[in-house]
Amino acid sequence: MYTEIFNQFKKQLGQLDKWLGTAAEYAKSKNFDPDVFATLRLAPDQFPLARQVQIACDTVKLAVAYLTGKPAPAQEDNEKTLAELQARVQSIIQLLQGLNPRDFDDAPTRVVSQPRWKGEWMTGADYFVEHALPNFYFHLATAYAILRHNGVGIGKRDYLGQQTKRPAAP
Amino acid sequence: MYTEIFNQFKKQLGQLDKWLGTAAEYAKSKNFDPDVFATLRLAPDQFPLARQVQIACDTVKLAVAYLTGKPAPAQEDNEKTLAELQARVQSIIQLLQGLNPRDFDDAPTRVVSQPRWKGEWMTGADYFVEHALPNFYFHLATAYAILRHNGVGIGKRDYLGQQTKRPAAP
Repeated sequence: MYTEIFNQFKKQLGQLDKWLGTAAEYAKSKNFDPDVFATLRLAPDQFPLARQVQIACDTVKLAVAYLTGKPAPAQEDNEKTLAELQARVQSIIQLLQGLNPRDFDDAPTRVVSQPRWKGEWMTGADYFVEHALPNFYFHLATAYAILRHNGVGIGKRDYLGQQTKRPAAP
Repeated sequence: MYTEIFNQFKKQLGQLDKWLGTAAEYAKSKNFDPDVFATLRLAPDQFPLARQVQIACDTVKLAVAYLTGKPAPAQEDNEKTLAELQARVQSIIQLLQGLNPRDFDDAPTRVVSQPRWKGEWMTGADYFVEHALPNFYFHLATAYAILRHNGVGIGKRDYLGQQTKRPAAP
């Protein structure tokens, strides 16, 4: 199911790209600077939109690296505009487009660890289900919530995107 | 991976139960009615907390029904208090506790459809990845965002819950 879920992440990132575009149009229609959105947050001690987008992107990038063994390209977290955030999102979509199902062959049994874990580790399977999946959707939905709270006209369909419906039997 | 992800949903619902408890304690410490939280929302045309919790619960309940063939118990959506919402969450945790891995044996190839789809359908695999997973996390993270925006002291660790770390090699 790794391939299917990373394909879904790719679709969700495409939707995020669109929300950012809708936010820019909304700002234009109201004559305010669209890049103000990058600084907005839902609580004073919560990350602003820009960081939410960066972490959503990084969660996918790092999950790919941990689960496939391919190195994660370094990125500087210096995005300040909606256009720069859209480029960051597109960079992850491109990364995902370069994968094939065989890349995940030994994903479940890979050893995932980080220096601050002091030697402790997770299986790739546990890391994916307990960290990557909930963390990606957390930051994606938080980015959505920040835009929605601040007047951007997006709805559930913009969140989910197109679903694979099969035609009715003739 | 169905069993692992539904186990994760169970853990996430347990975390949601805790956030609602933390919200009640916060209200008590500030001398306001905790059940006000059930009515709060992030935008005037967005569902309030109670509905976010109900939909998160229903997404899991319906996914179980669609993917296992077991009937989904009807529920009335009449929760108005945090305690009632916690009971709703617990009902889904209990539902998940009654499942075993064999229940998902034919999940990927099951036919999922709804009357309003007019005969169109999705495979169980597509429904799970394209609808159930993103929709559950959407409403879970939105419930979290509503609480967080309104001062409840919860953070990312309360969202993710305990992760399965393995001990360092001796």
